[in-house]
Amino acid sequence: MTPPLPASLERARQLVTPALERALDRLEPGIREVTDYHFGFDDANGSGGKAVRPALALLSTEAAGAPAETALDGAVAVELVHNFSLLHDDIIDRDRERHHRATAWTVFGEDRATLAGDALATLSLQLLLDGRGPEHVRAAGLLAESTQRMIAGQSQDLALEGRADVTLDEVIAMLSAKTAALLACASGIGAVLAGAPRPLVDRLLSFGEHLGVAFQAVDDQLGIWGEPEVTGKPAWSDLRQRKSSLPVAAALQTDGTELRSLLGRGKLSEEDLARAATLVEQAGGRAWAAREADERLAAALAELDAAAIPAEARDGLAALARFIVTRDF
Amino acid sequence: MTPPLPASLERARQLVTPALERALDRLEPGIREVTDYHFGFDDANGSGGKAVRPALALLSTEAAGAPAETALDGAVAVELVHNFSLLHDDIIDRDRERHHRATAWTVFGEDRATLAGDALATLSLQLLLDGRGPEHVRAAGLLAESTQRMIAGQSQDLALEGRADVTLDEVIAMLSAKTAALLACASGIGAVLAGAPRPLVDRLLSFGEHLGVAFQAVDDQLGIWGEPEVTGKPAWSDLRQRKSSLPVAAALQTDGTELRSLLGRGKLSEEDLARAATLVEQAGGRAWAAREADERLAAALAELDAAAIPAEARDGLAALARFIVTRDF
Repeated sequence: MTPPLPASLERARQLVTPALERALDRLEPGIREVTDYHFGFDDANGSGGKAVRPALALLSTEAAGAPAETALDGAVAVELVHNFSLLHDDIIDRDRERHHRATAWTVFGEDRATLAGDALATLSLQLLLDGRGPEHVRAAGLLAESTQRMIAGQSQDLALEGRADVTLDEVIAMLSAKTAALLACASGIGAVLAGAPRPLVDRLLSFGEHLGVAFQAVDDQLGIWGEPEVTGKPAWSDLRQRKSSLPVAAALQTDGTELRSLLGRGKLSEEDLARAATLVEQAGGRAWAAREADERLAAALAELDAAAIPAEARDGLAALARFIVTRDF
Repeated sequence: MTPPLPASLERARQLVTPALERALDRLEPGIREVTDYHFGFDDANGSGGKAVRPALALLSTEAAGAPAETALDGAVAVELVHNFSLLHDDIIDRDRERHHRATAWTVFGEDRATLAGDALATLSLQLLLDGRGPEHVRAAGLLAESTQRMIAGQSQDLALEGRADVTLDEVIAMLSAKTAALLACASGIGAVLAGAPRPLVDRLLSFGEHLGVAFQAVDDQLGIWGEPEVTGKPAWSDLRQRKSSLPVAAALQTDGTELRSLLGRGKLSEEDLARAATLVEQAGGRAWAAREADERLAAALAELDAAAIPAEARDGLAALARFIVTRDF
C-alpha cells in the first residue's frame, strides 16, 4: 500500500506552484496555452504532478542550513526541465495518455508540444540566470549539465530499443542518465543555492543519483507487473513497448533463451506477453529489480547519514526517498 | 549577383569550427552522430553553413575593442542555438531538404533529430556557463533570452499559419522574434563578452535586430520569386507552403480580394501559384519587401555609425550586413 504523502510534497506544491506560474507567465501565449494544459493547474485530474523534484530541492537547501525559500528558483527550474522532458518524451514514445489524461501533443499537435518543451528548457535556465549571484550561476551550470545528461539518457534509450543483446550495465547507465541525473540535480541544487561546501553538495547529488536508480527499479517492476487500474497503463506495458527495462535485462543476463526469442518476435499476443512476464520473473528479473531498489535506497540513505545535515532536513529527505520507492503493485 | 564572401565569414569558419567540434565532442555518441551529419563537416555539400552568426559575434567583440578570440564561446553558442532551431524547424515544417541535402530527421527519424536539437540548445548555455566570469554569465543570460524569443517567434509563426486575416504588423513581430532575435544576440554577444558598456551593446543589438528583419525581407522575396536552381526550393515555395511572408502580408494590406480568395483555396495548382505571385507583385508586396530590406539595412548601418566602434570592426560589420541582404534572385 502506498504510504501517505510526505508533508514535503504538499509544502513544495504550495510554495512552488505560484512561482512556477509566474515563470510560465513569461512565455508566448501560444506556448503558454500548451504548458497550461500540460501542467493542468485548472484541471482536477491534472495536479501539476507530485512535485517530487521541487520537494527535493527545498529539502536540499534546508540540508545546507538555509530556509526553504532559498531554493525556490532551483525548485521551479528542475520542475520546468522535468516537464520539458515529459513533453518531448510523450511525442517520442507516442504516449497518448499520462495519468489518465490526453498528452499535450495529442491535443495541440507535435509541433506545438515540441516548441513548448523547447521553451520550458530555456526558461529553466533563464530563471536561474536572472538571479545573477554566484550561487545562482553555479546552480544554472549544474542544471544545464544535468539536463544534458538526461537528454543523453533519452538518446541511449532509443539506441537500446530493439537491440536483443542489451546488457544490464547498459540499461543501468542509460537510466542513471535518463532518470537519475535530474533527481540528483534536484537533490543538490538547493544546497548549491545555499552556498553549501562541495562535499555536502556531492553527498546530496549522490543521494539523488541512487534514489533515481531505485525509483526506476520500482517503476520498471510496475511497468510489467503493475495493475492497469493503478498505473493507468495496459498490463505488461513495458514488455508491449519493448522498453529497455531493468527486470528484463537482469533476466536476460541469467538464462534468456526462450525470453530472447519471444521478445525478438514482430508482434506479441497477450499470451506472449503473459509468458514473457512469467519468464522474466522465473529468471529472477523481478527479484533482482526489487533487490536493486532496496540496495539503492539504502545507499541513498547512507549518503544522508554520512553528511552533516540538520535532523529535520535529513528526516524529510529520507521520508521522501522512502515514499518515492514505495508504490502500489 | 552575389558579392564575394566577406573575409569575416571565412575567418569565422576557421576560428569557430575547431571550437564547435570540441563542444560537440561533449555530446552522447548517438546524438553526436546526428549533429555531425547535420553540420556536415565531412561532406563537401555540407559546409556547416555560412557562419554568419559566428562572424557577427567575432566582429561584435572587436567593435568593443577586444580581440576576436574573446567572443569564441559566444560565437560557438549562437551557432549551436541556430542549428538547434534548424533541426526542430525542419521537423515542424516537414522540410525534407536543406541546401540540397536530406534533413536530419529524414535520415535519423524525428525522435533522434528532436533530441539532437534539445542537446544543442542545452550545450550552448553549458559552454557559456563553463566560463563562469561575469561577462560569460551575462552572455548566457542574453543567449537564453534570445533563444526564448526565437522559440516564441516559431510559435507565433504556427499561430499565423492558415489565418487569412494576418496583418503586416503581426508578420513583422513574428519575424523579429523568429529570425531577428538570434541575429541581434550574435551581434551583441561579443561586446558583452568583452565587457562593453551597455549603450554600445544596445546599439549592436539594435543593429542585429534591423539586420534580421532586412534579411527576412530579402529571404521572403526569394521564397516567392527566387530561382529554384539558386534557392534549392521549388518555384513559389513560400506561397505553396502558405508561409507567413512579408510580401504577401504587404499585398493583402492594400488590395487583396482576389489574392485572399486564391490563398484561401485548399490546394493550389501551378497556375494558381503563378497568378498569386503576380497578384502579390501587382499589389506592391514585392516592392514593399524590397524597400523594407533597404530601410532596415540603412537603419542597421546607422546604429553602427552612431556608436563608437573601431573603423575596422565597423567596416567588417557593414560589409557582412550588406552581404546578408544581397542575394541572388
